[in-house]
Amino acid sequence: MHPRARHAQTSIFTHMSLLAARHGAVNLGQGFPSNPPPAFLLDAARRAVGTVDQYTPPLGLPALREALGADLNVDPADVIVTSGATEGLLTLALSLLVPTRDGQPAELVVFEPVYDVYVPQAELAGARAVPVPLHLDPEEGWSLDLAAVRAAITPRTQALLVNTPHNPTGLVFSWAELTELVALAREHDLWLISDEVYDELYASERPTSLRELAPERTFTVGSAGKRLEVTGWRVGWILCPPGLGGGLSLAGGLANVRQVTSFCSPAPLQAAVAEALPLARSQGYYAALRADYAARRALLSSGLRSLGAQVHEPQGTYFLTAQHPTWTAEGLVESGAVAVIPGEAFYVTSPPPAGLLRFAFCKSRAELEQALERLARLSNF
Amino acid sequence: MHPRARHAQTSIFTHMSLLAARHGAVNLGQGFPSNPPPAFLLDAARRAVGTVDQYTPPLGLPALREALGADLNVDPADVIVTSGATEGLLTLALSLLVPTRDGQPAELVVFEPVYDVYVPQAELAGARAVPVPLHLDPEEGWSLDLAAVRAAITPRTQALLVNTPHNPTGLVFSWAELTELVALAREHDLWLISDEVYDELYASERPTSLRELAPERTFTVGSAGKRLEVTGWRVGWILCPPGLGGGLSLAGGLANVRQVTSFCSPAPLQAAVAEALPLARSQGYYAALRADYAARRALLSSGLRSLGAQVHEPQGTYFLTAQHPTWTAEGLVESGAVAVIPGEAFYVTSPPPAGLLRFAFCKSRAELEQALERLARLSNF
Repeated sequence: MHPRARHAQTSIFTHMSLLAARHGAVNLGQGFPSNPPPAFLLDAARRAVGTVDQYTPPLGLPALREALGADLNVDPADVIVTSGATEGLLTLALSLLVPTRDGQPAELVVFEPVYDVYVPQAELAGARAVPVPLHLDPEEGWSLDLAAVRAAITPRTQALLVNTPHNPTGLVFSWAELTELVALAREHDLWLISDEVYDELYASERPTSLRELAPERTFTVGSAGKRLEVTGWRVGWILCPPGLGGGLSLAGGLANVRQVTSFCSPAPLQAAVAEALPLARSQGYYAALRADYAARRALLSSGLRSLGAQVHEPQGTYFLTAQHPTWTAEGLVESGAVAVIPGEAFYVTSPPPAGLLRFAFCKSRAELEQALERLARLSNF
Repeated sequence: MHPRARHAQTSIFTHMSLLAARHGAVNLGQGFPSNPPPAFLLDAARRAVGTVDQYTPPLGLPALREALGADLNVDPADVIVTSGATEGLLTLALSLLVPTRDGQPAELVVFEPVYDVYVPQAELAGARAVPVPLHLDPEEGWSLDLAAVRAAITPRTQALLVNTPHNPTGLVFSWAELTELVALAREHDLWLISDEVYDELYASERPTSLRELAPERTFTVGSAGKRLEVTGWRVGWILCPPGLGGGLSLAGGLANVRQVTSFCSPAPLQAAVAEALPLARSQGYYAALRADYAARRALLSSGLRSLGAQVHEPQGTYFLTAQHPTWTAEGLVESGAVAVIPGEAFYVTSPPPAGLLRFAFCKSRAELEQALERLARLSNF
């Protein structure tokens, strides 16, 4: 088997879900919601099944590209629908990272802690992910270290992968920080790949989208799975820099790669998302979801604090990171209490901060309460 | 952009579907069925939406792996569910084709005419597809040239990609031919990748599956899209050689690659296929579909013959190839008559046989009749 297949490890998320099931632990590990998806989305899917069942164009169902264009304020011609954000990110790695003149792998700068697919995807593309640590202050929490980003850029660097809101830390990069990243990208002529799958899941102000600051070089990756609480539907997208005119577009080039990875995204689910996007906006669905998550975040966060954890409050996503002097992910799941993701799962080069764990709060209030009760019982041992 | 992105061309199938729509031509180009999918499948999908909406394991929904194991007589542990057969084939290319000792690309032997994704997928894997022409006799039709296969094998050859029933020719390799291919693969220690997406669409006897002859080296690729007439659902699979015992399986290694291409296949559609597979078998669905296709094939075939085409009768798939002295794919679609796929779309190295066209007969009887009428009118000009 190819080294790239041997190197790829079983996803920690899948692994912890299996352990959670085996030990009867509350699963706060893998980031999939427990509450039901919105009814308007499910109704649309039930109607689409039986009417939109055959191949769509690899670029996506025209109705979905139109709906995404309207929702995200981009030209539908610059939208590519992918089989989840995962495939969007793979398509970008395969398309944008080119062989370097010196025959060495191209370099893709990523932030560490790093979402686990970025590294093996770069390797599949024949490139190398270069992790830049985010700074963790015990009191102030996570922050971007711009000097470290600058130091990581070499003549082989071809793209900077930004993830905001950031998984696992919940960090949201500010307008000022993104502006500095854009300046770096322009100085070194780098592509910007902006993983914004949590774009609607923010805690206070709406995050700045990198595309607003650098439309000429930003590819934005998004996901219906995160916004509409259907992680298993595999409907994601890429927003490409604006077309070059005359029918020439970057989207067209990327679609040629994307059509040989999975040809097209699931047709009836694309149709359902197309119908649901304007409804989600007009019905205030995202605002209600944010309010709901704010309450669940507060519940988990205060509960963990009362058990002696140092909680780093997230500004977005449905995760929070916390440090605890005695808990380990392995210990927590094997005792049948709670499945969480260990910090080391997100570290490739540097050692993870001591006792770092990621908790998902996209679970029901009952599950969060049960998790806290079980953790409390452990602490009383 | 990476050369591999630039080299990938817009799929001829997508291209012809767009031209068909633009010119009002009957679309006998892209291979998606016109008739509705089976009701038991659609009902199952409507029930799964709202209950199976979150990530499944990258290996696939356990219920689907069980159902595939039962239907295909393999251990469910050796089954990987993929986002359509396309992603199954990509996963195999990325996992099995390894760098050669001399630093040259690994070689994957394929048959020509060749299904268009095999070549760019090999390139994405850093390998090279080596096409071996199938022989075309004006009277006898298509046949396998074993001597040509033997001649194409070099020290860099690592796998042989067999497609049976074969798209676009409809050729089904016989037990004797497959036995000879297996002997070659064993002699040169090659993997066998067997694209059997048309496994239930055969004209006379059930085709031999390569896995029966060489279970130790065969990866079989299949698709719910073709069997159950839902090409847009993106539920395919890989059957791996039997596990190595002790929980070690080739499926596990491949799943590690597949989880970074699209993580998992669409969850509710996986659940629906799991429910539909035993029903399709017990209700005689495939036999009825074959009978229906036999009638449509006869209609198209005799119609084309009466218009002066040399038809090469297929033994499987829902395509037939034909040669005509004056028709061209471009001319037929631009006149607003019929969209078909030109022979050259399937040829990478050798020139295509003169006037070769691929016709899809997975269309309604009304469409086939209309197509024949329009072709007749063209011939009378």
